Amino acid sequence: MQYVKKVKLGLLGAGTVGQSLIRILEKEKDRILRNHGVLLEISKIGDRSYEKKELLKSYHCTKNLFEVIEDQTIDIIIELIGGINPAKELILKAIENNKSIVTANKALLANYGKEIFDLIKQKQEQKIPVTIGFEASVGGALPIIKNLRRIWSFGNIHSLVGILNGTCNFIITKMEEGLEYQEALKIAQEKGFAEADPSFDVSGKDAGQKLAIISSLGSGCWIEEKDIIIEGIENIQKVDHQIAHKWGMVIRLIAICKYIKNQLLLRVHPALISKNHLLADVKNEFNALFIEEEYSGSTFIVGKGAGGFPTASAVLADIMSIASGSTNPWFMEYKNIEIIKDAEYRFYLRFQTIDKPGVLAAISRVLADFEISIASMHQEEGEEPVNVVIFTHECKESSIYKALEIINQKKDIILAPTIALRVLN
Amino acid sequence: MQYVKKVKLGLLGAGTVGQSLIRILEKEKDRILRNHGVLLEISKIGDRSYEKKELLKSYHCTKNLFEVIEDQTIDIIIELIGGINPAKELILKAIENNKSIVTANKALLANYGKEIFDLIKQKQEQKIPVTIGFEASVGGALPIIKNLRRIWSFGNIHSLVGILNGTCNFIITKMEEGLEYQEALKIAQEKGFAEADPSFDVSGKDAGQKLAIISSLGSGCWIEEKDIIIEGIENIQKVDHQIAHKWGMVIRLIAICKYIKNQLLLRVHPALISKNHLLADVKNEFNALFIEEEYSGSTFIVGKGAGGFPTASAVLADIMSIASGSTNPWFMEYKNIEIIKDAEYRFYLRFQTIDKPGVLAAISRVLADFEISIASMHQEEGEEPVNVVIFTHECKESSIYKALEIINQKKDIILAPTIALRVLN
Repeated sequence: MQYVKKVKLGLLGAGTVGQSLIRILEKEKDRILRNHGVLLEISKIGDRSYEKKELLKSYHCTKNLFEVIEDQTIDIIIELIGGINPAKELILKAIENNKSIVTANKALLANYGKEIFDLIKQKQEQKIPVTIGFEASVGGALPIIKNLRRIWSFGNIHSLVGILNGTCNFIITKMEEGLEYQEALKIAQEKGFAEADPSFDVSGKDAGQKLAIISSLGSGCWIEEKDIIIEGIENIQKVDHQIAHKWGMVIRLIAICKYIKNQLLLRVHPALISKNHLLADVKNEFNALFIEEEYSGSTFIVGKGAGGFPTASAVLADIMSIASGSTNPWFMEYKNIEIIKDAEYRFYLRFQTIDKPGVLAAISRVLADFEISIASMHQEEGEEPVNVVIFTHECKESSIYKALEIINQKKDIILAPTIALRVLN
Repeated sequence: MQYVKKVKLGLLGAGTVGQSLIRILEKEKDRILRNHGVLLEISKIGDRSYEKKELLKSYHCTKNLFEVIEDQTIDIIIELIGGINPAKELILKAIENNKSIVTANKALLANYGKEIFDLIKQKQEQKIPVTIGFEASVGGALPIIKNLRRIWSFGNIHSLVGILNGTCNFIITKMEEGLEYQEALKIAQEKGFAEADPSFDVSGKDAGQKLAIISSLGSGCWIEEKDIIIEGIENIQKVDHQIAHKWGMVIRLIAICKYIKNQLLLRVHPALISKNHLLADVKNEFNALFIEEEYSGSTFIVGKGAGGFPTASAVLADIMSIASGSTNPWFMEYKNIEIIKDAEYRFYLRFQTIDKPGVLAAISRVLADFEISIASMHQEEGEEPVNVVIFTHECKESSIYKALEIINQKKDIILAPTIALRVLN
């Protein structure tokens, strides 16, 4: 084969994903050359504990990450260290050095993406073919990012609705099978689906950062993590799953970006959805996304949202795009769009009360004060705390929050903070 | 914005998809320029009945399709006339003229793809940046083709299993709701999901051509339509759906490319699948594909597999890839791979018999002669012809075909050709 491009890679961070990438490149070098006409070479690896890693023995390694981005022979920098610092500085300097970037860093893009994209735009306007690939930042091996700039990019995105955090989905679907939160979390940790400190995932923050990235691409506006209302799964108990089940529903941590009358709804929260909903079939560590766009219609995609090899596949896909000459301009309008602060939902409320006459009256009086209309009310049998479940008609989130603040203060009848979950159609 | 590429398009064929493309380009010109930095212009349209089409009034049109590919100002040729002739000659000549191609032509690629790819390869080896995009040839707006060369391209593809024909899926799922084949077909025709002559779709041929294309990409070997065993949905009756339902299953027209011990299984056929299978949720005109690849794991994608705007989105995605500089080398190994001629399946057999003693004995004797082992047998109540349903254990396709040939000849007891459907796990 005569038409072969040589592409030199600089890798920052050789953790799980970085090492998976190295393994694929070692094993599939010939296939990649054959299929893509590209010869990939890892020229330098920046990793602070490279000496401890057997796999890195035959590579040129350094503890000084800046040495990698200063290397003039390197074409593409692959940033897999994560977090804001020093990733941000490294990426900006690498772009200044006319290197293209491939990154899985959702935290950075969801908070400082604009700065990075602006610098790339400057370079592109000078006709310097620098670009960025970040397929791996959202949904692991699910091809979401590139397609939001390709096949789903020609008309308005009506909505993006997905399950973007595999840890939460694993825990939630294990709870569905009968485990309590802590038991499910422990299994997730044993299987490597959850960190020792799981708060970044279970708080919904990880899904929020991913939603910021795809909402930006989908809306053409720059959405940041702080623009999104985020709620986690930490307070949900097994009994909530059992009650949901009784009503033909399941609980999922849902990320939503949706246009409603030219305003944008941006939310990450657990929600009750019908068992017949396609997202109800998404179980364990899988991720999924619904895309509703003007011309392509509805598309639904499910796959491995995390893990070494799936994420490395996404990194490698970006590398191949850049290597095959695509300059992928990521122009954004940075137009202002109004973000919906207070939306209306049906709510599932579970009050944990003492077993005494007058409790229901006290709760329903407060709900009435905030014009929250009750669709149905059910008292579950059992020991104290007694679970009183209320499904509301559509009402404002703010009304729910205010009402619950008052109700939760009634320590004489309310024994634990009330669980409030949105019910999606 | 200073960094703007102008790209001139020549369009061959302005039918439903072509006109949808024109409408998107007219309406979204600004968005495309803003988001992609590309100014697209349709320079010339070749269409034999352009005078009758209102939408084409303001364009430079010609009845001579060859005039379009000879136009030296045109960068990309969009071939949407379909069929083998003159599409093949037009595409080959356009490539010779150093133009890149975007096409939705599955018949051409599934039968003469090698010739076209070889010519592109020659050009690429001469460093002439000519390429081909054919996202629209399979699954409409589903991003399958590009991803089979990106995120799903680094390890072995273990299997591709999908619903690739929206017409068949529409008819089948309408039959599930209680219609007979002819009634469901009529509705499909009224809705524009089926042609006046539906044979290309309902015979499975359309899905077969699509499977040829994705199997080629997935296996790295050149698979043609003739390599695939194809069966259609024409003979299935409402009662088959009712019986499937009774056993917790549904019927779908399934396309499969699967590696079994280094040999390739290639089939398009209706099959019984569990109601819990994700493909069972794919209804009406939707298409879907499961991709099982070494590194990215399992991915499942569902969406609009046909229609003007979805298909035009796929065409436009290819145009943007080419415009953004991607040269997409489509190198293939053209290695030889053994294709499985005779596979083992569990079968659903529905015999339409007279209501007389001895019938079951006659049928089961022939099955025994071919070593087809019966898992269960059920005689449905009702008027003649009486439906005798047999589920077999795993047995060879060839044995089933041979046994049924003999059984169907017993005109004294068998009143209509036996329905044989594979049962998938």
